[in-house]
Amino acid sequence: MSKERKFVKDIASKKEDFSRWYVELVTKTKLADYSPVKGCMVIPPYGFALWENTRAGLDRRIKETGHQNAYFPLFIPEALLKKEAEHVEGFAPEVAWVTHGGDKKLEERLAVRPTSEAIICSMYSKWINSYRDLPVLINQWANVVRWEKVTRLFLRTTEFLWQEGHTAHATEEEALEETLKMLDVYEDFVEKDLAIPVIKGVKTASERFAGAVDTYCIEAMMCDGKGLQAGTTHNLGQGFAKAFNITFLDKDQERKYVWQTSWGVSTRLIGAIIMVHGDERGLKLPPKIAPIQSVIVPIMAKDSELVLKEAEDIYKQLSENGIRMKLDDRDEYKPGWKYNEWEMRGVPIRLEIGPKDIEKNQVVLVRRDTHKKYFISREELIPKIKELLEAIQLNMFNMAKEFMLENTHIDITDYKKFCKTIKKKRGFIYAGWCGSEECEAKIKEHTKATIRCIPFGEEGQGGDKEDSNCIYCGKEAKHRVYFARSY
Amino acid sequence: MSKERKFVKDIASKKEDFSRWYVELVTKTKLADYSPVKGCMVIPPYGFALWENTRAGLDRRIKETGHQNAYFPLFIPEALLKKEAEHVEGFAPEVAWVTHGGDKKLEERLAVRPTSEAIICSMYSKWINSYRDLPVLINQWANVVRWEKVTRLFLRTTEFLWQEGHTAHATEEEALEETLKMLDVYEDFVEKDLAIPVIKGVKTASERFAGAVDTYCIEAMMCDGKGLQAGTTHNLGQGFAKAFNITFLDKDQERKYVWQTSWGVSTRLIGAIIMVHGDERGLKLPPKIAPIQSVIVPIMAKDSELVLKEAEDIYKQLSENGIRMKLDDRDEYKPGWKYNEWEMRGVPIRLEIGPKDIEKNQVVLVRRDTHKKYFISREELIPKIKELLEAIQLNMFNMAKEFMLENTHIDITDYKKFCKTIKKKRGFIYAGWCGSEECEAKIKEHTKATIRCIPFGEEGQGGDKEDSNCIYCGKEAKHRVYFARSY
Repeated sequence: MSKERKFVKDIASKKEDFSRWYVELVTKTKLADYSPVKGCMVIPPYGFALWENTRAGLDRRIKETGHQNAYFPLFIPEALLKKEAEHVEGFAPEVAWVTHGGDKKLEERLAVRPTSEAIICSMYSKWINSYRDLPVLINQWANVVRWEKVTRLFLRTTEFLWQEGHTAHATEEEALEETLKMLDVYEDFVEKDLAIPVIKGVKTASERFAGAVDTYCIEAMMCDGKGLQAGTTHNLGQGFAKAFNITFLDKDQERKYVWQTSWGVSTRLIGAIIMVHGDERGLKLPPKIAPIQSVIVPIMAKDSELVLKEAEDIYKQLSENGIRMKLDDRDEYKPGWKYNEWEMRGVPIRLEIGPKDIEKNQVVLVRRDTHKKYFISREELIPKIKELLEAIQLNMFNMAKEFMLENTHIDITDYKKFCKTIKKKRGFIYAGWCGSEECEAKIKEHTKATIRCIPFGEEGQGGDKEDSNCIYCGKEAKHRVYFARSY
Repeated sequence: MSKERKFVKDIASKKEDFSRWYVELVTKTKLADYSPVKGCMVIPPYGFALWENTRAGLDRRIKETGHQNAYFPLFIPEALLKKEAEHVEGFAPEVAWVTHGGDKKLEERLAVRPTSEAIICSMYSKWINSYRDLPVLINQWANVVRWEKVTRLFLRTTEFLWQEGHTAHATEEEALEETLKMLDVYEDFVEKDLAIPVIKGVKTASERFAGAVDTYCIEAMMCDGKGLQAGTTHNLGQGFAKAFNITFLDKDQERKYVWQTSWGVSTRLIGAIIMVHGDERGLKLPPKIAPIQSVIVPIMAKDSELVLKEAEDIYKQLSENGIRMKLDDRDEYKPGWKYNEWEMRGVPIRLEIGPKDIEKNQVVLVRRDTHKKYFISREELIPKIKELLEAIQLNMFNMAKEFMLENTHIDITDYKKFCKTIKKKRGFIYAGWCGSEECEAKIKEHTKATIRCIPFGEEGQGGDKEDSNCIYCGKEAKHRVYFARSY
């Protein structure tokens, strides 16, 4: 057993069995658990606190950009869901249908919302009448249901939690601006709060949201090299407005259809946090969203009363200074066992205090990200711990960014090499693409790799195509794009 | 038209048609709207901000008393719901059933949760093993669905939002203590944050939660004199523990069933806020939870640029001081129109500023609760507005309390007079009851009044029965209880 692994007897090795590592990590650290309902998970307190902190950072940004929260029904009558043709085609196979209320059969089946465009558009057609009613900038935090065949905790579950923004605008330009603004909001939130670097870009037609004109995304690289779509924003054009008859009387006295957007991120972000930052010892949680930012482990071999009193004082002092603290005063476990447990659960800073530390008027801090130890005098504790939390947040982002850059292959021009790289090496391949859906489909068929996005390059939406050719057909490339296998 | 009514042309008179007043008030102030799904409502931004503020105050208290939030699946497999016999009997008639996923029929029907005891107990039986795992103190904020025949915005809707606490304890005493503690938390929250006085007590057997040993409640009086159950806490005993096999190995090495509680409040609280505080001019929102605490109406007849600049300065200054502000700078409406609108929407303080006020270095504040006007110098504005918000909060509680006392009839000993009072007068009747379900049922049959609760009197749970007799059968009273028609 390697040195890295010696502490963790509970979870599979990440190197040897990534899938098992993921599942065991999620369940053993109590981020999620399987439920008696196929494909649905339970989110226990530790996982939910992580989601609450995650949600808070995004909710603040959504409100700061002028949006307001609202709530729409869980159910969508079948006829309503069918109004926008592409939309229903995309979602119908995944819909859970309510057919009975009590012991009565319903006259019309109700879809449990897979997403809320249909029900929200039906309300917008009632609420919007004049240019003065625009823009409508509404967000909803909700549960949604998509009947999935293969599920995976956080990444793909039948029920999941998310936010979905739904906006309506007077002009096409404004709607596009909103779509891109929210993509920036997602980037800022995911990079700064979750310490996950992302690539921003636009999806190809085949990966677009059902009913959208364009789907934009932020894509992240997991530590096994696969891609994960971390958030999407959709420019909906006027498709839904026409299907649901959402019109307004403009300043020029003409009645016009609105232009719409929608955008969402979900609990799958928790999966990203685990898979970007986790290591052989377990979770590594970014300080900004960690449910516990620092855990105090008192060393109580002797003078245990004194040590416990001191630990309680420190707990109180740091809690009052806004740091999310935990005092692990369980007497059934030894300090070493506790160190391993809280490392596995990803707490950014461990604080040790024992009789000798009290004599020296100090505490010991240990960083989860670098394992570095610090001996800190009690007077310096508050500023030092705040400084370390910031340093850890930054370092985690930098490590993830470095990993992403190291595992992005930019010099592959030959399709054989492309296939070999996808199969043998991990990571993204940044290569030329002619723009045809055929080439895209063939590559997916051969390698399971999809185009994660056409990145916003220096030339704008087209990405930096330089003089490259399509990696599959060899014709002149229309874009350079990111290919990867993904979750 | 009375003087009181002259400002509000939009909503029905509360005195003349209370039901219509309620519905028009809810929809016209944009607290809620009807949706295309039978019995389900939409909560637009203004209503949802009120719910968010309400939720925040309770969530804080739930966490301060040691509980943690978590999330459990929306769906409950039929077999699981049926495990506790009384529970399923109570809820089965109201369950919405999912029978299909995509186009496939499910092997087992899934209930859309009407409440989560069944799914949560199934997890607790997995999570709880030792006395060291206890107590489990978990809360969930979620949507639930109960198929209702007659619905009413906020008060009774097919889908509603709520929190549900679910706890497990090692001893019966601890579970009872938790049940009563959470009732105190609800009382504190509803009285202090929502400014609604409540009566605490225990429900009679016929009004108990399906599966509980005892149900406790806080009851409030609406301004039409009807009662509304504002929150309930349930002492579940060991019924669910036995049905779901939730056991733990105790310190004495014996395996025992846990003792459980559950407790909840819902979006119907918003209905209570409207019906306790609302008046002929519209909503009156308690400052602690009002989405907008003060609205600035600039009077822009002349010097409009100067006035607007000043209004913006005030907006900024007060917002930065933590007051939830709105600047109504719409140019399509006159100040008088805006006054009426924001009165109707219940904003606690209106702030007027015009050219003359600027000359005098003052602003005008108008209280929503008393309509009293204050001329305040700019220097005094921040402390004065904070002081007024507190005064309004307190006054609203006192007014509601006075109304409740005035409309509680404590001297009725004759059943004929009882019936007449219920039918002709509004309010609660505090009278003797022998304790038999028969008398309770007969009274309900004759008058539609139910026993709202057996209050915690000076003698404890039994209420203050003095020497009274049962209002129906005349036998010696076991309790004095509150009778009322209710929502």
